[in-house]
Amino acid sequence: MQEITAGQFELVYNAFSFTIATMGAATLLFWLGRSQVAPAYRTALTLTGLVTAIAAYHYIRIIDSWDAAYTVVNGQITTTGIAFNDAYRYVDWLLTVPLLLVELILVMRLSRAETWSKGVRLGLLAAIMVVLGYPGEVSDAAGTRWLWWSLAMIPFLWIVYELFVGLKKSIASQPENARGLVNAARWVTVLSWSFYPVVFVFPMIGFSGSAAETAVQVGYTVADVVAKALFGVLIFMIALRKSEHEMASTPKDGRLAAAE
Amino acid sequence: MQEITAGQFELVYNAFSFTIATMGAATLLFWLGRSQVAPAYRTALTLTGLVTAIAAYHYIRIIDSWDAAYTVVNGQITTTGIAFNDAYRYVDWLLTVPLLLVELILVMRLSRAETWSKGVRLGLLAAIMVVLGYPGEVSDAAGTRWLWWSLAMIPFLWIVYELFVGLKKSIASQPENARGLVNAARWVTVLSWSFYPVVFVFPMIGFSGSAAETAVQVGYTVADVVAKALFGVLIFMIALRKSEHEMASTPKDGRLAAAE
Repeated sequence: MQEITAGQFELVYNAFSFTIATMGAATLLFWLGRSQVAPAYRTALTLTGLVTAIAAYHYIRIIDSWDAAYTVVNGQITTTGIAFNDAYRYVDWLLTVPLLLVELILVMRLSRAETWSKGVRLGLLAAIMVVLGYPGEVSDAAGTRWLWWSLAMIPFLWIVYELFVGLKKSIASQPENARGLVNAARWVTVLSWSFYPVVFVFPMIGFSGSAAETAVQVGYTVADVVAKALFGVLIFMIALRKSEHEMASTPKDGRLAAAE
Repeated sequence: MQEITAGQFELVYNAFSFTIATMGAATLLFWLGRSQVAPAYRTALTLTGLVTAIAAYHYIRIIDSWDAAYTVVNGQITTTGIAFNDAYRYVDWLLTVPLLLVELILVMRLSRAETWSKGVRLGLLAAIMVVLGYPGEVSDAAGTRWLWWSLAMIPFLWIVYELFVGLKKSIASQPENARGLVNAARWVTVLSWSFYPVVFVFPMIGFSGSAAETAVQVGYTVADVVAKALFGVLIFMIALRKSEHEMASTPKDGRLAAAE
Protein backbone atom coordinates (compact mmCIF):
# COMPACT_ATOMS: atom_id res chain seq x y z
CA MET A 1 0.00 0.00 0.00
CA GLN A 2 0.88 3.61 -0.61
CA GLU A 3 2.38 5.33 2.47
CA ILE A 4 0.18 8.20 3.61
CA THR A 5 -0.04 10.41 6.71
CA ALA A 6 -2.57 9.90 9.50
CA GLY A 7 -4.24 13.19 8.49
CA GLN A 8 -4.58 12.03 4.87
CA PHE A 9 -6.00 8.70 6.03
CA GLU A 10 -8.63 10.51 8.09
CA LEU A 11 -9.53 12.99 5.35
CA VAL A 12 -10.19 10.14 2.90
CA TYR A 13 -12.03 8.13 5.58
CA ASN A 14 -14.31 11.06 6.38
CA ALA A 15 -14.94 11.72 2.68
CA PHE A 16 -16.07 8.08 2.32
CA SER A 17 -18.33 8.32 5.38
CA PHE A 18 -19.83 11.58 4.04
CA THR A 19 -20.57 9.78 0.78
CA ILE A 20 -22.30 6.84 2.48
CA ALA A 21 -24.59 9.32 4.29
CA THR A 22 -25.20 11.36 1.13
CA MET A 23 -25.94 8.38 -1.13
CA GLY A 24 -28.20 6.76 1.49
CA ALA A 25 -30.12 9.99 2.07
CA ALA A 26 -30.43 10.63 -1.67
CA THR A 27 -31.83 7.12 -2.21
CA LEU A 28 -34.59 7.71 0.34
CA LEU A 29 -35.34 11.17 -1.10
CA PHE A 30 -35.87 9.70 -4.57
CA TRP A 31 -37.89 6.68 -3.48
CA LEU A 32 -40.12 8.68 -1.12
CA GLY A 33 -40.57 11.17 -3.96
CA ARG A 34 -41.96 8.53 -6.34
CA SER A 35 -45.49 9.09 -5.02
CA GLN A 36 -45.22 12.83 -5.74
CA VAL A 37 -44.63 12.49 -9.50
CA ALA A 38 -46.85 11.32 -12.36
CA PRO A 39 -46.66 7.53 -12.92
CA ALA A 40 -44.77 8.08 -16.20
CA TYR A 41 -41.76 9.31 -14.20
CA ARG A 42 -41.73 6.74 -11.42
CA THR A 43 -39.36 4.33 -13.14
CA ALA A 44 -36.91 7.20 -13.63
CA LEU A 45 -37.00 7.88 -9.86
CA THR A 46 -36.70 4.18 -9.04
CA LEU A 47 -33.52 4.00 -11.14
CA THR A 48 -32.18 7.27 -9.72
CA GLY A 49 -32.51 5.78 -6.23
CA LEU A 50 -30.98 2.48 -7.37
CA VAL A 51 -27.88 4.32 -8.57
CA THR A 52 -27.36 6.01 -5.19
CA ALA A 53 -28.26 2.80 -3.29
CA ILE A 54 -25.66 0.83 -5.26
CA ALA A 55 -23.13 3.60 -4.61
CA ALA A 56 -23.93 3.58 -0.85
CA TYR A 57 -23.33 -0.19 -0.81
CA HIS A 58 -19.98 0.17 -2.57
CA TYR A 59 -18.85 3.04 -0.35
CA ILE A 60 -19.57 0.89 2.72
CA ARG A 61 -17.26 -1.75 1.21
CA ILE A 62 -14.72 0.91 0.19
CA ILE A 63 -14.55 2.46 3.69
CA ASP A 64 -14.10 -0.99 5.26
CA SER A 65 -11.32 -1.82 2.79
CA TRP A 66 -9.63 1.54 3.46
CA ASP A 67 -9.88 0.95 7.21
CA ALA A 68 -8.41 -2.56 6.85
CA ALA A 69 -5.42 -1.26 4.86
CA TYR A 70 -4.13 1.07 7.60
CA THR A 71 -3.90 1.20 11.39
CA VAL A 72 -3.66 4.49 13.27
CA VAL A 73 -2.57 4.27 16.91
CA ASN A 74 -1.52 7.33 18.93
CA GLY A 75 -1.45 9.36 15.73
CA GLN A 76 1.04 6.96 14.08
CA ILE A 77 -0.11 5.32 10.85
CA THR A 78 1.12 1.95 9.59
CA THR A 79 0.07 -0.13 6.62
CA THR A 80 -1.36 -3.53 7.52
CA GLY A 81 -0.27 -5.24 4.30
CA ILE A 82 -3.87 -5.76 3.24
CA ALA A 83 -4.45 -4.12 -0.13
CA PHE A 84 -7.06 -1.38 -0.58
CA ASN A 85 -9.54 -2.73 -3.14
CA ASP A 86 -9.91 -0.09 -5.84
CA ALA A 87 -11.94 -2.48 -8.01
CA TYR A 88 -15.12 -1.68 -6.04
CA ARG A 89 -15.26 1.58 -7.98
CA TYR A 90 -15.28 -0.19 -11.33
CA VAL A 91 -17.90 -2.71 -10.23
CA ASP A 92 -20.00 0.24 -9.06
CA TRP A 93 -19.58 2.18 -12.30
CA LEU A 94 -20.37 -0.88 -14.43
CA LEU A 95 -23.81 -0.93 -12.82
CA THR A 96 -24.48 2.74 -12.16
CA VAL A 97 -23.12 4.55 -15.23
CA PRO A 98 -25.50 2.89 -17.73
CA LEU A 99 -28.37 3.44 -15.24
CA LEU A 100 -27.52 7.16 -14.98
CA LEU A 101 -27.92 7.59 -18.74
CA VAL A 102 -31.13 5.55 -18.78
CA GLU A 103 -32.66 7.68 -15.99
CA LEU A 104 -31.95 10.85 -18.01
CA ILE A 105 -33.60 9.36 -21.08
CA LEU A 106 -36.61 8.11 -19.08
CA VAL A 107 -37.26 11.47 -17.45
CA MET A 108 -37.19 13.14 -20.89
CA ARG A 109 -40.11 10.87 -21.82
CA LEU A 110 -39.35 10.43 -25.50
CA SER A 111 -41.32 8.11 -27.74
CA ARG A 112 -41.12 4.45 -26.79
CA ALA A 113 -38.94 3.64 -29.85
CA GLU A 114 -36.53 6.47 -29.11
CA THR A 115 -36.35 5.61 -25.40
CA TRP A 116 -35.45 2.06 -26.30
CA SER A 117 -32.85 2.84 -28.98
CA LYS A 118 -31.15 5.65 -27.05
CA GLY A 119 -31.28 3.72 -23.78
CA VAL A 120 -29.68 0.60 -25.24
CA ARG A 121 -27.06 2.53 -27.21
CA LEU A 122 -25.99 4.86 -24.39
CA GLY A 123 -26.19 2.11 -21.76
CA LEU A 124 -23.97 -0.20 -23.79
CA LEU A 125 -21.48 2.54 -24.60
CA ALA A 126 -21.24 3.39 -20.89
CA ALA A 127 -20.64 -0.25 -19.91
CA ILE A 128 -17.97 -0.65 -22.62
CA MET A 129 -16.28 2.56 -21.43
CA VAL A 130 -16.01 1.24 -17.85
CA VAL A 131 -14.80 -2.21 -18.96
CA LEU A 132 -12.10 -0.64 -21.18
CA GLY A 133 -10.88 1.58 -18.35
CA TYR A 134 -10.32 -1.25 -15.89
CA PRO A 135 -7.24 -3.03 -17.41
CA GLY A 136 -5.51 0.37 -17.46
CA GLU A 137 -6.46 1.17 -13.84
CA VAL A 138 -4.88 -2.02 -12.47
CA SER A 139 -1.66 -1.57 -14.47
CA ASP A 140 1.45 0.25 -13.26
CA ALA A 141 2.92 0.58 -16.77
CA ALA A 142 2.27 4.02 -18.25
CA GLY A 143 2.08 2.60 -21.79
CA THR A 144 -0.62 0.09 -20.84
CA ARG A 145 -2.53 2.78 -18.95
CA TRP A 146 -2.47 5.15 -21.97
CA LEU A 147 -3.62 2.35 -24.30
CA TRP A 148 -6.74 1.48 -22.29
CA TRP A 149 -7.39 5.12 -21.43
CA SER A 150 -7.45 5.94 -25.15
CA LEU A 151 -9.75 3.01 -25.90
CA ALA A 152 -12.15 4.03 -23.11
CA MET A 153 -12.20 7.60 -24.41
CA ILE A 154 -13.86 6.44 -27.65
CA PRO A 155 -17.19 5.44 -26.04
CA PHE A 156 -16.82 8.41 -23.64
CA LEU A 157 -16.65 10.93 -26.47
CA TRP A 158 -19.41 9.12 -28.33
CA ILE A 159 -21.67 9.50 -25.24
CA VAL A 160 -20.84 13.22 -24.99
CA TYR A 161 -21.69 13.60 -28.68
CA GLU A 162 -25.01 11.78 -28.19
CA LEU A 163 -25.89 13.94 -25.18
CA PHE A 164 -25.14 17.19 -26.97
CA VAL A 165 -26.08 16.57 -30.56
CA GLY A 166 -28.37 13.53 -30.40
CA LEU A 167 -30.56 14.87 -27.59
CA LYS A 168 -30.67 18.48 -28.82
CA LYS A 169 -33.93 18.11 -30.73
CA SER A 170 -35.53 16.19 -27.86
CA ILE A 171 -34.71 19.00 -25.43
CA ALA A 172 -36.62 21.51 -27.53
CA SER A 173 -39.69 19.27 -27.11
CA GLN A 174 -39.51 19.39 -23.27
CA PRO A 175 -42.05 21.63 -21.48
CA GLU A 176 -40.63 25.07 -20.90
CA ASN A 177 -40.68 24.82 -17.09
CA ALA A 178 -38.31 21.83 -17.25
CA ARG A 179 -36.07 22.69 -20.20
CA GLY A 180 -33.46 24.55 -18.15
CA LEU A 181 -33.23 21.66 -15.69
CA VAL A 182 -32.85 19.04 -18.44
CA ASN A 183 -30.09 21.12 -19.93
CA ALA A 184 -28.42 21.42 -16.52
CA ALA A 185 -28.63 17.62 -16.10
CA ARG A 186 -26.78 17.11 -19.43
CA TRP A 187 -24.08 19.54 -18.35
CA VAL A 188 -23.70 18.00 -14.89
CA THR A 189 -23.25 14.61 -16.58
CA VAL A 190 -20.57 15.78 -19.01
CA LEU A 191 -18.67 17.94 -16.51
CA SER A 192 -18.69 15.47 -13.61
CA TRP A 193 -17.80 12.57 -15.92
CA SER A 194 -14.87 14.51 -17.40
CA PHE A 195 -13.25 14.35 -14.01
CA TYR A 196 -12.70 10.56 -14.15
CA PRO A 197 -10.36 10.36 -17.20
CA VAL A 198 -8.39 13.29 -15.76
CA VAL A 199 -7.88 11.56 -12.38
CA PHE A 200 -6.93 8.37 -14.24
CA VAL A 201 -4.06 10.22 -15.95
CA PHE A 202 -2.49 11.52 -12.67
CA PRO A 203 0.01 8.66 -12.18
CA MET A 204 0.95 8.76 -15.89
CA ILE A 205 2.04 12.41 -15.73
CA GLY A 206 4.26 12.06 -12.67
CA PHE A 207 1.67 13.11 -10.08
CA SER A 208 2.21 10.41 -7.46
CA GLY A 209 2.93 9.87 -3.77
CA SER A 210 0.66 10.21 -0.76
CA ALA A 211 -0.82 13.61 -1.74
CA ALA A 212 -1.75 12.21 -5.16
CA GLU A 213 -3.33 9.10 -3.63
CA THR A 214 -5.37 11.34 -1.33
CA ALA A 215 -6.37 13.62 -4.21
CA VAL A 216 -7.45 10.64 -6.33
CA GLN A 217 -9.64 9.15 -3.57
CA VAL A 218 -11.24 12.45 -2.58
CA GLY A 219 -11.55 13.47 -6.24
CA TYR A 220 -13.38 10.31 -7.35
CA THR A 221 -15.62 10.67 -4.28
CA VAL A 222 -16.62 14.25 -5.05
CA ALA A 223 -17.22 13.31 -8.70
CA ASP A 224 -19.45 10.39 -7.60
CA VAL A 225 -21.50 12.64 -5.29
CA VAL A 226 -22.05 15.16 -8.09
CA ALA A 227 -22.66 12.62 -10.87
CA LYS A 228 -25.07 10.47 -8.83
CA ALA A 229 -26.70 12.37 -5.94
CA LEU A 230 -26.72 15.94 -7.28
CA PHE A 231 -27.63 14.67 -10.78
CA GLY A 232 -30.43 12.65 -9.13
CA VAL A 233 -31.81 15.79 -7.46
CA LEU A 234 -32.02 17.37 -10.92
CA ILE A 235 -33.83 14.29 -12.28
CA PHE A 236 -36.27 14.48 -9.32
CA MET A 237 -36.93 18.19 -9.95
CA ILE A 238 -37.45 17.57 -13.68
CA ALA A 239 -39.96 14.81 -12.86
CA LEU A 240 -41.81 17.10 -10.41
CA ARG A 241 -41.98 20.01 -12.87
CA LYS A 242 -43.11 17.84 -15.76
CA SER A 243 -45.75 16.17 -13.60
CA GLU A 244 -47.11 19.62 -12.66
CA HIS A 245 -47.01 20.73 -16.28
CA GLU A 246 -48.99 17.68 -17.35
CA MET A 247 -51.57 18.20 -14.60
CA ALA A 248 -51.92 21.88 -15.52
CA SER A 249 -52.29 21.24 -19.24
CA THR A 250 -55.19 18.81 -18.87
CA PRO A 251 -57.75 20.92 -16.99
CA LYS A 252 -60.71 18.82 -18.11
CA ASP A 253 -59.47 15.70 -16.47
CA GLY A 254 -57.20 16.34 -13.55
CA ARG A 255 -56.87 12.64 -12.95
CA LEU A 256 -55.07 11.98 -16.22
CA ALA A 257 -51.55 12.13 -14.89
CA ALA A 258 -52.46 10.10 -11.84
CA ALA A 259 -54.37 7.45 -13.77
CA GLU A 260 -51.82 7.11 -16.51
CA MET B 1 -7.12 10.88 23.85
CA GLN B 2 -8.39 12.94 26.75
CA GLU B 3 -8.29 11.05 30.07
CA ILE B 4 -11.79 10.68 31.50
CA THR B 5 -13.38 8.66 34.29
CA ALA B 6 -15.32 5.44 33.69
CA GLY B 7 -18.50 7.24 34.83
CA GLN B 8 -17.95 10.04 32.30
CA PHE B 9 -17.29 7.51 29.55
CA GLU B 10 -20.61 5.79 30.32
CA LEU B 11 -22.58 9.03 30.55
CA VAL B 12 -21.39 10.11 27.10
CA TYR B 13 -21.92 6.59 25.70
CA ASN B 14 -25.50 6.50 26.97
CA ALA B 15 -26.19 10.00 25.63
CA PHE B 16 -25.07 8.79 22.20
CA SER B 17 -27.27 5.70 22.43
CA PHE B 18 -30.25 7.87 23.49
CA THR B 19 -29.65 10.00 20.41
CA ILE B 20 -29.56 7.04 18.02
CA ALA B 21 -32.95 5.92 19.37
CA THR B 22 -34.40 9.45 19.22
CA MET B 23 -33.20 10.21 15.71
CA GLY B 24 -34.32 6.82 14.39
CA ALA B 25 -37.76 7.17 15.98
CA ALA B 26 -38.13 10.75 14.74
CA THR B 27 -37.29 9.63 11.19
CA LEU B 28 -40.08 7.06 11.23
CA LEU B 29 -42.55 9.57 12.75
CA PHE B 30 -41.91 12.06 9.95
CA TRP B 31 -41.97 9.56 7.09
CA LEU B 32 -45.07 7.74 8.33
CA GLY B 33 -46.69 11.18 8.71
CA ARG B 34 -46.13 12.09 5.03
CA SER B 35 -49.45 10.51 4.01
CA GLN B 36 -51.33 12.62 6.59
CA VAL B 37 -50.37 16.00 5.14
CA ALA B 38 -51.31 17.73 1.90
CA PRO B 39 -48.97 16.86 -1.01
CA ALA B 40 -47.46 20.36 -0.94
CA TYR B 41 -45.86 19.55 2.43
CA ARG B 42 -44.56 16.06 1.70
CA THR B 43 -41.12 17.13 0.50
CA ALA B 44 -40.71 19.14 3.74
CA LEU B 45 -41.45 15.97 5.76
CA THR B 46 -39.17 13.88 3.55
CA LEU B 47 -36.29 16.28 4.25
CA THR B 48 -37.15 16.48 7.97
CA GLY B 49 -36.81 12.69 8.16
CA LEU B 50 -33.61 12.72 6.08
CA VAL B 51 -32.01 15.09 8.60
CA THR B 52 -32.75 12.77 11.53
CA ALA B 53 -31.81 9.68 9.46
CA ILE B 54 -28.44 11.21 8.56
CA ALA B 55 -27.94 12.12 12.24
CA ALA B 56 -28.82 8.55 13.33
CA TYR B 57 -26.20 7.22 10.90
CA HIS B 58 -23.54 9.57 12.26
CA TYR B 59 -24.37 8.83 15.90
CA ILE B 60 -23.94 5.11 15.17
CA ARG B 61 -20.46 5.89 13.81
CA ILE B 62 -19.79 8.30 16.72
CA ILE B 63 -20.72 5.74 19.41
CA ASP B 64 -18.52 3.10 17.71
CA SER B 65 -15.60 5.54 17.56
CA TRP B 66 -16.12 6.49 21.24
CA ASP B 67 -16.19 2.83 22.19
CA ALA B 68 -12.99 2.15 20.22
CA ALA B 69 -11.15 5.01 21.96
CA TYR B 70 -11.55 3.62 25.51
CA THR B 71 -11.57 0.26 27.27
CA VAL B 72 -13.38 -0.16 30.58
CA VAL B 73 -12.52 -3.35 32.50
CA ASN B 74 -13.49 -3.88 36.15
CA GLY B 75 -14.44 -0.20 36.37
CA GLN B 76 -10.94 0.87 35.28
CA ILE B 77 -10.78 2.99 32.12
CA THR B 78 -7.79 3.13 29.77
CA THR B 79 -7.34 4.84 26.42
CA THR B 80 -6.67 2.50 23.49
CA GLY B 81 -4.61 4.96 21.44
CA ILE B 82 -7.26 5.05 18.72
CA ALA B 83 -8.47 8.65 18.31
CA PHE B 84 -12.14 9.56 18.78
CA ASN B 85 -13.27 10.90 15.40
CA ASP B 86 -14.87 14.30 16.11
CA ALA B 87 -15.07 15.01 12.38
CA TYR B 88 -18.27 12.95 12.08
CA ARG B 89 -20.11 15.89 13.65
CA TYR B 90 -18.89 18.30 10.98
CA VAL B 91 -19.67 15.87 8.16
CA ASP B 92 -23.16 15.52 9.65
CA TRP B 93 -23.70 19.27 9.99
CA LEU B 94 -22.46 19.90 6.44
CA LEU B 95 -25.37 17.78 5.19
CA THR B 96 -28.06 18.42 7.80
CA VAL B 97 -27.78 22.14 8.61
CA PRO B 98 -28.62 23.32 5.06
CA LEU B 99 -31.45 20.74 4.94
CA LEU B 100 -32.89 22.07 8.24
CA LEU B 101 -33.21 25.56 6.78
CA VAL B 102 -34.68 24.22 3.53
CA GLU B 103 -37.34 22.21 5.42
CA LEU B 104 -38.41 25.39 7.28
CA ILE B 105 -38.69 27.29 4.00
CA LEU B 106 -40.59 24.46 2.29
CA VAL B 107 -43.16 24.15 5.08
CA MET B 108 -43.79 27.91 4.89
CA ARG B 109 -44.81 27.36 1.26
CA LEU B 110 -43.65 30.64 -0.21
CA SER B 111 -43.76 31.39 -3.95
CA ARG B 112 -41.49 29.23 -6.11
CA ALA B 113 -39.08 32.11 -6.75
CA GLU B 114 -38.85 32.95 -3.03
CA THR B 115 -38.46 29.28 -2.04
CA TRP B 116 -35.63 28.94 -4.51
CA SER B 117 -33.78 32.15 -3.63
CA LYS B 118 -34.13 31.77 0.15
CA GLY B 119 -33.35 28.04 0.02
CA VAL B 120 -30.18 28.50 -2.01
CA ARG B 121 -29.00 31.50 0.04
CA LEU B 122 -29.63 30.01 3.48
CA GLY B 123 -28.41 26.55 2.44
CA LEU B 124 -25.14 27.95 1.11
CA LEU B 125 -24.62 30.18 4.15
CA ALA B 126 -25.15 27.17 6.44
CA ALA B 127 -22.65 25.04 4.50
CA ILE B 128 -20.07 27.85 4.54
CA MET B 129 -20.58 28.28 8.30
CA VAL B 130 -19.84 24.58 8.96
CA VAL B 131 -16.82 24.52 6.64
CA LEU B 132 -15.35 27.62 8.34
CA GLY B 133 -15.79 26.10 11.79
CA TYR B 134 -13.87 22.90 11.02
CA PRO B 135 -10.25 24.20 10.79
CA GLY B 136 -10.79 25.81 14.21
CA GLU B 137 -12.24 22.66 15.74
CA VAL B 138 -9.22 20.53 14.81
CA SER B 139 -6.72 23.10 16.09
CA ASP B 140 -5.29 23.27 19.61
CA ALA B 141 -4.06 26.87 19.26
CA ALA B 142 -6.46 29.36 20.84
CA GLY B 143 -5.58 32.03 18.24
CA THR B 144 -6.44 29.72 15.32
CA ARG B 145 -9.65 28.66 17.02
CA TRP B 146 -10.75 32.29 17.55
CA LEU B 147 -9.94 33.17 13.93
CA TRP B 148 -12.12 30.42 12.42
CA TRP B 149 -14.80 30.88 15.07
CA SER B 150 -15.05 34.56 14.11
CA LEU B 151 -15.21 33.73 10.40
CA ALA B 152 -17.94 31.12 10.97
CA MET B 153 -19.93 33.63 13.02
CA ILE B 154 -20.39 35.84 9.94
CA PRO B 155 -22.65 33.39 8.05
CA PHE B 156 -24.22 32.39 11.40
CA LEU B 157 -25.32 35.95 12.16
CA TRP B 158 -26.41 36.42 8.55
CA ILE B 159 -28.68 33.36 8.89
CA VAL B 160 -30.14 34.68 12.17
CA TYR B 161 -30.80 38.01 10.45
CA GLU B 162 -32.50 36.26 7.50
CA LEU B 163 -34.67 34.19 9.85
CA PHE B 164 -35.78 37.20 11.89
CA VAL B 165 -35.94 40.06 9.44
CA GLY B 166 -36.08 38.33 6.03
CA LEU B 167 -38.86 35.91 6.98
CA LYS B 168 -40.92 38.37 9.03
CA LYS B 169 -43.28 39.34 6.20
CA SER B 170 -43.66 35.71 5.13
CA ILE B 171 -44.73 34.73 8.65
CA ALA B 172 -47.59 37.23 8.56
CA SER B 173 -48.86 35.42 5.46
CA GLN B 174 -49.05 32.03 7.24
CA PRO B 175 -52.52 30.80 8.25
CA GLU B 176 -53.35 31.87 11.79
CA ASN B 177 -53.52 28.33 13.19
CA ALA B 178 -49.87 27.75 12.19
CA ARG B 179 -48.31 31.17 12.78
CA GLY B 180 -47.34 30.50 16.41
CA LEU B 181 -45.70 27.21 15.46
CA VAL B 182 -43.72 28.77 12.59
CA ASN B 183 -42.55 31.42 14.98
CA ALA B 184 -41.56 28.74 17.53
CA ALA B 185 -39.61 26.87 14.81
CA ARG B 186 -37.59 30.02 14.08
CA TRP B 187 -36.82 30.44 17.77
CA VAL B 188 -35.86 26.80 18.27
CA THR B 189 -33.47 27.14 15.35
CA VAL B 190 -31.76 30.25 16.65
CA LEU B 191 -31.60 29.14 20.29
CA SER B 192 -30.42 25.58 19.68
CA TRP B 193 -27.89 26.75 17.10
CA SER B 194 -26.49 29.34 19.52
CA PHE B 195 -25.32 26.48 21.67
CA TYR B 196 -22.69 25.30 19.14
CA PRO B 197 -20.48 28.43 19.02
CA VAL B 198 -20.61 28.55 22.84
CA VAL B 199 -19.43 24.93 23.22
CA PHE B 200 -16.72 25.63 20.63
CA VAL B 201 -15.32 28.40 22.86
CA PHE B 202 -14.98 26.18 26.02
CA PRO B 203 -11.32 25.15 25.47
CA MET B 204 -10.37 28.73 24.55
CA ILE B 205 -11.57 30.15 27.89
CA GLY B 206 -9.74 27.66 30.07
CA PHE B 207 -12.58 25.19 30.47
CA SER B 208 -10.75 21.93 29.80
CA GLY B 209 -10.04 18.49 31.25
CA SER B 210 -12.28 15.48 31.50
CA ALA B 211 -15.36 17.34 32.81
CA ALA B 212 -15.13 19.75 29.87
CA GLU B 213 -14.74 16.90 27.34
CA THR B 214 -17.85 15.26 28.83
CA ALA B 215 -19.78 18.56 28.81
CA VAL B 216 -18.85 19.18 25.16
CA GLN B 217 -19.98 15.71 24.02
CA VAL B 218 -23.24 15.74 25.99
CA GLY B 219 -23.81 19.40 25.08
CA TYR B 220 -23.48 18.89 21.32
CA THR B 221 -25.72 15.83 21.63
CA VAL B 222 -28.53 17.69 23.43
CA ALA B 223 -28.27 20.54 20.91
CA ASP B 224 -28.53 18.05 18.02
CA VAL B 225 -31.64 16.43 19.51
CA VAL B 226 -33.34 19.83 19.94
CA ALA B 227 -32.24 21.28 16.57
CA LYS B 228 -33.14 18.17 14.54
CA ALA B 229 -35.75 15.96 16.26
CA LEU B 230 -37.69 18.55 18.30
CA PHE B 231 -37.48 21.05 15.44
CA GLY B 232 -38.77 18.30 13.13
CA VAL B 233 -41.79 17.72 15.38
CA LEU B 234 -42.63 21.43 14.99
CA ILE B 235 -42.28 21.14 11.20
CA PHE B 236 -44.61 18.11 11.26
CA MET B 237 -47.20 19.99 13.35
CA ILE B 238 -47.02 23.02 11.04
CA ALA B 239 -47.58 20.77 8.02
CA LEU B 240 -50.57 19.11 9.73
CA ARG B 241 -52.18 22.45 10.72
CA LYS B 242 -51.65 23.99 7.30
CA SER B 243 -53.06 20.91 5.57
CA GLU B 244 -56.20 21.17 7.72
CA HIS B 245 -56.46 24.89 7.02
CA GLU B 246 -56.22 24.32 3.27
CA MET B 247 -58.82 21.58 3.29
CA ALA B 248 -61.17 23.79 5.36
CA SER B 249 -60.76 26.82 3.10
CA THR B 250 -61.60 25.01 -0.16
CA PRO B 251 -65.03 23.54 0.58
CA LYS B 252 -66.11 23.55 -3.09
CA ASP B 253 -63.32 21.31 -4.25
CA GLY B 254 -62.01 19.10 -1.53
CA ARG B 255 -59.69 17.45 -3.98
CA LEU B 256 -57.64 20.58 -4.56
CA ALA B 257 -55.01 19.83 -1.95
CA ALA B 258 -54.79 16.22 -3.07
CA ALA B 259 -54.49 17.03 -6.77
CA GLU B 260 -52.05 19.86 -6.32
